[in-house]
Amino acid sequence: MTAILSVCVTCRRTDSDPEDETRPGAHLRHALDALDCPEGVEIRSVECLSACNNGCAVALSAPGKWSYVYGRMSPENASDILEGSAAYAATADGLVPWRARPVIFRKQSLARIPPLSANPDPEE
Amino acid sequence: MTAILSVCVTCRRTDSDPEDETRPGAHLRHALDALDCPEGVEIRSVECLSACNNGCAVALSAPGKWSYVYGRMSPENASDILEGSAAYAATADGLVPWRARPVIFRKQSLARIPPLSANPDPEE
Repeated sequence: MTAILSVCVTCRRTDSDPEDETRPGAHLRHALDALDCPEGVEIRSVECLSACNNGCAVALSAPGKWSYVYGRMSPENASDILEGSAAYAATADGLVPWRARPVIFRKQSLARIPPLSANPDPEE
Repeated sequence: MTAILSVCVTCRRTDSDPEDETRPGAHLRHALDALDCPEGVEIRSVECLSACNNGCAVALSAPGKWSYVYGRMSPENASDILEGSAAYAATADGLVPWRARPVIFRKQSLARIPPLSANPDPEE
């Protein structure tokens, strides 16, 4: 199954224009749609990733892989987000080598969640 | 399948004792283990939920449900964490009604990730 890039389209940013009725998250989605979507990646719009203090937020998930949430994204990051999503899609477990991650993914990870199939206890 | 409560056992807290060689995350795990684990909940230790600035962190996940990550947890929150986990386990989609969530879950959510089976586009 493909990797899912979830984009919060209701996200605000602290630096967003209060006069603009289009949410920054929607602008980010449009910026992503304007580029070629990498093979193995599907973009989905969601309403709220509960990371409102760190908008715009996106998440990467796929069956059997670690899931990631990234924050403080902007439309200018669209290309890097897709590049990082492609690298994620190419892994078996979601763990992209550190140096192969876009800088925004290295520095702006909000959280990650282990796959349900993960070893029940890392010490066992 | 049961709901998985992932506990980062390598987490630090900003207010933790630097002389204590046991990580605050491990203390949290011990506090959880000292209580009765609710039916339908399995506790797993993980090393790093990439929420290091908001430790201690825990995550809730289950097949077909929204996943959640919570931060700034302490051993004193163990009972509330298990109560919130039980409420999560009892849902079909992971969405516990707001008022039924422990206050720490309402106020200290770091992020959530939609289930892979989620409607591809909320506007469709």
